[in-house]
Amino acid sequence: MLPNNILPDEELTDLCIRQQWKVLQKKQGFRFSIDAVLLAHFITPSAKHRVLELGTGSGVIPHLIAARHPQVQIDAMELQPEIADMANRSVQYNQLGEQIHIIQQDITQIPAHYQQQYDWVVSNPPFFPVGTGKQNPNPQIALARHEIACTLDQLIQSAAYCLTSRGHFALIHRAERLTDILSCCMQHRLAPYRLRMVHPTLEQPANLLLLEAIKDGRNGITVMPPLPIYRSIAKITSDKSTYSDEVLSYYY
Amino acid sequence: MLPNNILPDEELTDLCIRQQWKVLQKKQGFRFSIDAVLLAHFITPSAKHRVLELGTGSGVIPHLIAARHPQVQIDAMELQPEIADMANRSVQYNQLGEQIHIIQQDITQIPAHYQQQYDWVVSNPPFFPVGTGKQNPNPQIALARHEIACTLDQLIQSAAYCLTSRGHFALIHRAERLTDILSCCMQHRLAPYRLRMVHPTLEQPANLLLLEAIKDGRNGITVMPPLPIYRSIAKITSDKSTYSDEVLSYYY
Repeated sequence: MLPNNILPDEELTDLCIRQQWKVLQKKQGFRFSIDAVLLAHFITPSAKHRVLELGTGSGVIPHLIAARHPQVQIDAMELQPEIADMANRSVQYNQLGEQIHIIQQDITQIPAHYQQQYDWVVSNPPFFPVGTGKQNPNPQIALARHEIACTLDQLIQSAAYCLTSRGHFALIHRAERLTDILSCCMQHRLAPYRLRMVHPTLEQPANLLLLEAIKDGRNGITVMPPLPIYRSIAKITSDKSTYSDEVLSYYY
Repeated sequence: MLPNNILPDEELTDLCIRQQWKVLQKKQGFRFSIDAVLLAHFITPSAKHRVLELGTGSGVIPHLIAARHPQVQIDAMELQPEIADMANRSVQYNQLGEQIHIIQQDITQIPAHYQQQYDWVVSNPPFFPVGTGKQNPNPQIALARHEIACTLDQLIQSAAYCLTSRGHFALIHRAERLTDILSCCMQHRLAPYRLRMVHPTLEQPANLLLLEAIKDGRNGITVMPPLPIYRSIAKITSDKSTYSDEVLSYYY
């Protein structure tokens, strides 16, 4: 990437995948985490499927999906113009402009031409309702962590709006919000279809969940085998070698 | 037990617990399974708590709870007079008449004097809505497996009715019905509090769930570590030695 395409407050981060793609992130902003990697490995789009991400931030998830599914088209919406521009420069840097389109868009006000256009809608939204937990003074981090610009209900409503009938909604969120999430999905015609609980280790409560719901789908959910991030409690360190076999397989 | 207290179509079954209690079951009827054992080990009543079971069948669950919690009082309701009588004879046989009371009662029509009387309401209800799966020609088995006498919604409504505020509802059910169950609980002021998915092995989807909900409780659920029944796929046989360590610890 040309130096004049990287702003002074940005830096390139390696996605740690075979393609050796890198994305720009704000040095002081919200950093991508394993959540994005888990979501990208949870979904199962077919070739030619159209995928939309709601709230892409620095565009990590569309890159990870593109790496696994070279034939899908991915649109990714981001509210903040400065962040959308940064994500777009990452897409250009990795020469993915034909597969990934970054759209600067408020996802609570999605224009009608996106209605029922997507086979998959995916999201790694803010995890915390406003008023819970401490809000970060950095507004970019606050927007990524707290439901300031978009509540869970608004997100799910927008996902349902953009999906075709029988389209797939996929979400990563906090395990604690399972009840809210299933209830919101049902209210917006998204039938919970496949749930995977993510545990730090198999001996600990889940901290995250991965959910797939089908628009206008049937009642009845499959709860998949649990996904442990680390091998065991005794071995939790920051060293990647203690990741579980499945999570290790996600990285190159 | 005196032979004249056992009907020709009944037989005594060992509960496989330290106390060496035995319960009567119909030779051709619904047989108790590991579900009862899992539910009895999931709940955490304090001494002096009053516990109610809705739909007790042969009374296995009150026996298992009594074995683990000698100080709690347990009422157990059963619709079918013949089955309630059999359960009561088991209670007398094991000399538990001061701790367990079997009540012949339609749980969709619970009298007002049971309202808000219990700290815990537990149930291992029929797993299948009417019209799904094949209904057993034996009416006792059909009533235990299909929601003929009581739907999930009626069950949860009755549980909420009998609970004190902040009382605990505990249920074992099919994993597939997670969405319905959480939604029904919310509708009847029971806040899902603690969920444990039960998997045949950790490599397979969950087939059962254990749920605790709190009447008038707060939003936010804890998804506990998964509970595997068996050690691994390769080792599933009918031999108990292949149970997981946790399930093995439930038996004497």
